[in-house]
Amino acid sequence: MKNKLVIVTGVPGVGGTTLTEKAIEALKKEGINYKMVNFGTIMFEVAKSENLVEDRDQMRKLDPDTQKRIQKMAGRKISEMTADAPVIVDTHSTIKTPMGYLPGLPKWVLDELNPDIIVIVETTGDEILMRRLGDGSRNRDLESTGNIEEHQFMNRCAAMTYGVLTGATVKIIKNRDKLLEEGVEELLSVLK
Amino acid sequence: MKNKLVIVTGVPGVGGTTLTEKAIEALKKEGINYKMVNFGTIMFEVAKSENLVEDRDQMRKLDPDTQKRIQKMAGRKISEMTADAPVIVDTHSTIKTPMGYLPGLPKWVLDELNPDIIVIVETTGDEILMRRLGDGSRNRDLESTGNIEEHQFMNRCAAMTYGVLTGATVKIIKNRDKLLEEGVEELLSVLK
Amino acid sequence: MKNKLVIVTGVPGVGGTTLTEKAIEALKKEGINYKMVNFGTIMFEVAKSENLVEDRDQMRKLDPDTQKRIQKMAGRKISEMTADAPVIVDTHSTIKTPMGYLPGLPKWVLDELNPDIIVIVETTGDEILMRRLGDGSRNRDLESTGNIEEHQFMNRCAAMTYGVLTGATVKIIKNRDKLLEEGVEELLSVLK
Repeated sequence: MKNKLVIVTGVPGVGGTTLTEKAIEALKKEGINYKMVNFGTIMFEVAKSENLVEDRDQMRKLDPDTQKRIQKMAGRKISEMTADAPVIVDTHSTIKTPMGYLPGLPKWVLDELNPDIIVIVETTGDEILMRRLGDGSRNRDLESTGNIEEHQFMNRCAAMTYGVLTGATVKIIKNRDKLLEEGVEELLSVLK
Repeated sequence: MKNKLVIVTGVPGVGGTTLTEKAIEALKKEGINYKMVNFGTIMFEVAKSENLVEDRDQMRKLDPDTQKRIQKMAGRKISEMTADAPVIVDTHSTIKTPMGYLPGLPKWVLDELNPDIIVIVETTGDEILMRRLGDGSRNRDLESTGNIEEHQFMNRCAAMTYGVLTGATVKIIKNRDKLLEEGVEELLSVLK
Repeated sequence: MKNKLVIVTGVPGVGGTTLTEKAIEALKKEGINYKMVNFGTIMFEVAKSENLVEDRDQMRKLDPDTQKRIQKMAGRKISEMTADAPVIVDTHSTIKTPMGYLPGLPKWVLDELNPDIIVIVETTGDEILMRRLGDGSRNRDLESTGNIEEHQFMNRCAAMTYGVLTGATVKIIKNRDKLLEEGVEELLSVLK
């Protein structure tokens, strides 16, 4: 029986990583040991092992074909990890760039990853804005709540496409202020 | 000339099956004889003919690879039915499961089905909630209107992905309370 | 280094073509010479060169397989144009037809086009309705603001699917009344 591969996504500030860490900790007490990996980190490791880069800043300077090849290799590497343990991939459904929303898991990555479940952690644009303000983000980086909601809209579209291409389910989990435990419980129900 | 293959989808309680039956009845009077099939039923027939299951409850216990193979065979079988008559497939764009929204027509099924039109039957979350209440659904199964609307959102995303992958059009038909006839008329205009 | 291939989409009346023309004009002054093509026009040229049609009205009468082949050839032709200059394709994310929303760039076209950026030009349903009224559109062609917003919703879904299939970014640009220059500036930032 194959171990689960779960992808956890969410806009910056929504608290996806916190939620995931809490869920993993709770599962450990029950003897379920998820391995948590960050997609970008695995990509960097692959590129470094091929002597293509020395630090993470150099990653974005790779030519598109090399980047695509590294992405595929990272996808395969993560997929192979499920031989030993269930895996959670911490990543983004789409990344907001000056050129627009970049899909975090383009088709060639999905084909390698073959995920079971894609989780989208969401809350209202207002709550995300307040959390980002609290984070001490510099003002010029702040998006309006309208823009945050647009980002979350596109994340749903991308995630559902990931589901259609792979057969994975798409689980939307709300991470509301003061209701962290509810979010953790929901995530746990999916990971078990 | 190939007969039409139309897929009719909608969340539970929206009335997609009723709408379809009424449209088929009306078309029969005009000498157009659509065959209506339920995707899940065809899958069960395929699995049964291979002696994999005896009753429908056993379907979900099939291992994922077998399930995928059965899905493909069901898709092919339905596609072949269009040799004799136009076909309507009664199914769901996504199915809400505890693990998240499961795409009703993952890529490998679409590749076999090759549909012409994907219909989404919709109405407001409020109306769907009231219909489910009227259905005598048990309370614990009831979703909030917000959750129903989230489900409809994801159904649109999935259906549009089906369209991009196959070239099918995606038709949204409203099935509002007391306006059933309007919904039937709209569906008829697509089926003719 | 490959020249950029940018696809600009938007519902009728949103002003995508105007925005694109203004941006191209501004770039010309900076020595950046984008070629602007209309996807439908290229398709027609391809079909005409094969003696399949004589005028554009005949395009929709082509059988589906021929249409698909012409679409692919048009996609390849546009992609090849980027050898000489950066290219903007003026088209639609989805086309509203009586049979539903038809994807403007189905999978087989995307595979040929391989775009870098997909732009969606948007504004509110109200503003689009007012612009269409001002255009002298005949009343019977007018959609309600609700229907325009539904169309924009499906355009986002389709565009994000295009992104996942190709790795292109999806950029949403607002073209608000009296704020044309802001829209042009945003488009310029993507084209440069």
